[in-house]
Amino acid sequence: MRPQHIIERKRDGRALSTSEMESFVSGIVDGRWADYQISALVMAMFINGLTRAEQTSITRAMLESGTIMDLSDIDAPKADKHSTGGVGDKTSLLVAPIAAACGLAVPMISGRALGHTGGTLDKLESIAGYNVKLSFPKIKAVIRACGFALAGQTRSIAPADGKLYALRDATATVPYIPLIVASIMSKKLAEGLDALTLDVKTGKGAFIKSLPESKKLAHALCETGRKFGVNTGALVTDMSEPLGKFVGNSLEVFECVSILRGESDSQMDQTLALSIELTSTMLVQCGVASSLADGRKLSKNALNSGEAVERFRKNVELQGGDPRICDDPTRLLKTRTVSGAISAKASGYISGIDAYAVGSAVCYVGGGRVKAEDKIDHSVGFESRLKVGDRVDAGETLGIVHCRSRSQAAAVSEKLHAAYKISGEKPRISKLVRARI
Amino acid sequence: MRPQHIIERKRDGRALSTSEMESFVSGIVDGRWADYQISALVMAMFINGLTRAEQTSITRAMLESGTIMDLSDIDAPKADKHSTGGVGDKTSLLVAPIAAACGLAVPMISGRALGHTGGTLDKLESIAGYNVKLSFPKIKAVIRACGFALAGQTRSIAPADGKLYALRDATATVPYIPLIVASIMSKKLAEGLDALTLDVKTGKGAFIKSLPESKKLAHALCETGRKFGVNTGALVTDMSEPLGKFVGNSLEVFECVSILRGESDSQMDQTLALSIELTSTMLVQCGVASSLADGRKLSKNALNSGEAVERFRKNVELQGGDPRICDDPTRLLKTRTVSGAISAKASGYISGIDAYAVGSAVCYVGGGRVKAEDKIDHSVGFESRLKVGDRVDAGETLGIVHCRSRSQAAAVSEKLHAAYKISGEKPRISKLVRARI
Repeated sequence: MRPQHIIERKRDGRALSTSEMESFVSGIVDGRWADYQISALVMAMFINGLTRAEQTSITRAMLESGTIMDLSDIDAPKADKHSTGGVGDKTSLLVAPIAAACGLAVPMISGRALGHTGGTLDKLESIAGYNVKLSFPKIKAVIRACGFALAGQTRSIAPADGKLYALRDATATVPYIPLIVASIMSKKLAEGLDALTLDVKTGKGAFIKSLPESKKLAHALCETGRKFGVNTGALVTDMSEPLGKFVGNSLEVFECVSILRGESDSQMDQTLALSIELTSTMLVQCGVASSLADGRKLSKNALNSGEAVERFRKNVELQGGDPRICDDPTRLLKTRTVSGAISAKASGYISGIDAYAVGSAVCYVGGGRVKAEDKIDHSVGFESRLKVGDRVDAGETLGIVHCRSRSQAAAVSEKLHAAYKISGEKPRISKLVRARI
Repeated sequence: MRPQHIIERKRDGRALSTSEMESFVSGIVDGRWADYQISALVMAMFINGLTRAEQTSITRAMLESGTIMDLSDIDAPKADKHSTGGVGDKTSLLVAPIAAACGLAVPMISGRALGHTGGTLDKLESIAGYNVKLSFPKIKAVIRACGFALAGQTRSIAPADGKLYALRDATATVPYIPLIVASIMSKKLAEGLDALTLDVKTGKGAFIKSLPESKKLAHALCETGRKFGVNTGALVTDMSEPLGKFVGNSLEVFECVSILRGESDSQMDQTLALSIELTSTMLVQCGVASSLADGRKLSKNALNSGEAVERFRKNVELQGGDPRICDDPTRLLKTRTVSGAISAKASGYISGIDAYAVGSAVCYVGGGRVKAEDKIDHSVGFESRLKVGDRVDAGETLGIVHCRSRSQAAAVSEKLHAAYKISGEKPRISKLVRARI
């Protein structure tokens, strides 16, 4: 099938057949389609739309163009959690060990930081020696030993996705639900799961900012997952303020290890709460918990008993990292940084912290990536001293930017100040979980 | 301006500003825009449309990204004819010398064969030694000496067009009127003309096959030309059967020289008639003729007096070709070819000859190009022995394919047979000039 013929059909608003979609996806993988042909078709898909059937067929073609992991010889429910990306969104590092401690096997293939959002792999690499490049046999061995593995995508998983995503990023075609679904689900379905829990972010710090659109994405993801026989559920969760206390790679790992050790504080509690909601949803989906209440109890037990932190310690060891961070999380904060305080200009209540602005500021000081090839500075980041709803006096510290130089701190200070909204009245605080799909 | 931002605006159906359009076009020329970004924007333009203002701004940006010829020191009306492309469409080789003989200066920048259609440059190169690669000073010198020059596009004329066209060809975005207008007019307006006559083809052998669409293109071309201060007119002409007697490079030059020498026959007369219509329109547009009737008289005088063929002889000499073809046009047919007759399977009247099928067959035997880098075989082609409306007896020869081997002839014979429609009743013959814009 000539690329032009397939492009022409979508250009004219017609639906592509399964074989046309397969020809497109295999053409991406084997180079038969040129980049400019891929991007022309993607733009036509964006504008003229994909039907539900096409959404399924592109997901299937992308999934089947690569390897699907076979975990059938691991005798535990296989489940994973996936987030659509946010600021300070570090729950993977908690959900995986807690779920593992509750008896699930979690083959978590994760991504890297992009734009204003963080990435699990980059966070993990702030642990000295931690290796995210695992082969399939190694992933299985790690799961057998500690219940979960945290690894990067190999070339053989959904191989069309990498090129397709890079082209979408360069051609303003990222925010289209069927393409987002295909990108996420082709990778997640390759994990050979029984259950998948999605954390679809909504609000200023999310890629999709409106609640109705986020719900639409959650529904589309769940519908697609179920079509492939995976018990798929989704929480739509608030991403208007940064999640929890820290934004930035080693700082976020520090927050997670602290929580695993039972040392959460009032800023970190939000991270803990969302991690428990996600884990308990996974446990219910896998039939390990009978209800969400039961799931929450199991999750808290796994934390309080120390089983979750032990699973994490074991995982760090197995993946080559320094397990002593589990005894002393401040080991993660050894790199010398410069701190810049962001102080309140007025008294009142914090009614908003713009997660996008905070994420962009951290990215700017080196904690994220503008382009895929950018290097990450693991030690920089932002610390929330106060959260939305907190009372503040003029001059009080709202947060602290940790960076490499005074000039860096000065460069983002105005932006970070502007991220805070202070109002006279106590604001209505939006729920963390906005919807369950 | 980031390409993504401009792509996003058109993706969402908004009109691009003049500066956005300039940024796009200059980005094509200087490589700031990647091919996949160009093709994504072009697809968004195709689907979401360009306004009249955008059509003008993209044409202007493409025109002004290159050199505009200055012919102001040539003391004659500067005019050109341009065809949208057809099969056997060889009128340039007649219009240029006839118009020149009538006192016009014709700086004709032409193109090459593409797909099922022929190209003036390839036809000219079947004249031994003929050089179409002329510098600006050389073009001017040739015009001064014989009234017209036939040359290829230099890199400095509308430099964005080459890459843009190649990408459109590979991404199914060729047939969109505003982009066709920008491509044609950015090159033609670079010739520094007073008047431009367009031959917009319609029917099976044209790129735009329906009459209403062809008229729409003609209107858009004329409107754009006039906006740039060039007196622009268009004829919409029939391209359902191949034009005149021959299809194929040296065969078509043979036909043109025969006509210039006053040796036209009943199959060639169609070529002569259209050339006179086009030239007389140019003469009226330039104010050299007071009416079309007057223009026709002047054109015929130029032919009958021998002035046109002398202009052509002079041009061939100036551009390095062998002028003896003007004394003996059979010199063009010296390469040995194999002939295959296509015979009527039934008696009746020829009610149709599918120009697309004939053009494709000639292309298949080597007379055209599937890809831009393909080499042309100048000697092969097709000869119409009978035209639409002619009476035919079963077994009579309809046409002859000239090619390099018996197997080539056999390979296209069925296709060429199928190109002919024979019916019991005398068909209504569609007018050669379907509309004047």
